[in-house]
Amino acid sequence: MHPPTSNTSNVIPCDDYRWEGVERKDYKTDTANFRSIHRYSLLGEEYEPLSAHTRYFEIQPGGYSSLERHQHPHSVVVIRGGGSVILDNALHPIGLHDVVYIAPYSIHQFHADRGETLGFICVVDRDRDRPRIPAAEEVAEVITDPEVLARIRR
Amino acid sequence: MHPPTSNTSNVIPCDDYRWEGVERKDYKTDTANFRSIHRYSLLGEEYEPLSAHTRYFEIQPGGYSSLERHQHPHSVVVIRGGGSVILDNALHPIGLHDVVYIAPYSIHQFHADRGETLGFICVVDRDRDRPRIPAAEEVAEVITDPEVLARIRR
Repeated sequence: MHPPTSNTSNVIPCDDYRWEGVERKDYKTDTANFRSIHRYSLLGEEYEPLSAHTRYFEIQPGGYSSLERHQHPHSVVVIRGGGSVILDNALHPIGLHDVVYIAPYSIHQFHADRGETLGFICVVDRDRDRPRIPAAEEVAEVITDPEVLARIRR
Repeated sequence: MHPPTSNTSNVIPCDDYRWEGVERKDYKTDTANFRSIHRYSLLGEEYEPLSAHTRYFEIQPGGYSSLERHQHPHSVVVIRGGGSVILDNALHPIGLHDVVYIAPYSIHQFHADRGETLGFICVVDRDRDRPRIPAAEEVAEVITDPEVLARIRR
């Protein structure tokens, strides 16, 4: 292995959703409203010319990401299994290769709720605001559907 | 279907590498040094808040992308089949979920040379320079390995 540098093109081989030299990271450390989710930084901080970072998130069955809200948008492509995603006042089933666009300030949460692992690529801008956990009043303003409300984990 | 807008989160469902409402596009129109390749814009121009565009490229067996060079980097994740990629003076086999980083000004070309379709997600900045076909002298400066030279199609 030759460590990547910003000026060298390279291939990062993958074997069963694990990439050579890419470590599993904690999802977050400052909040606790998530479960059974890990992050893998595929093309990130160490690649200086990239203004977009490519990460892989993997949620074990029964797990979920934080319910969050932020200015920066997300571009998501599911590459493993399926589950569902809350996008504001709607709950969408998601499966292999579905694409999810998360618009600025959308309240969103991913769920691995099909009894299988849910894994997805998520692209974000290098320069971005910090995700926020919306207050109960913000959630109430945006989400009114009882089915969606019932699915929120926090 | 509700057409996406920049302010609305949404899911674009996928069925066997085809996304609802996403049309197949020609790869390019102003050069001819490619074969059996098509482009699908998954999250692109119509999503104004996105500074990174997510596209899917699909190369049929025996096909290849242009040999090209440009300032903007590429972030690539293979999601279908396999093949190989020329990255400057090296030829790399690529398979499912391998990640490819293409650094600024790298000379590169994708090949579906395993008898199967090669499909990959490719993320680029919204604002980017136009790809250029490197002149023969530029190629000779960068690529000296006979095996790599023999694989170039142009």
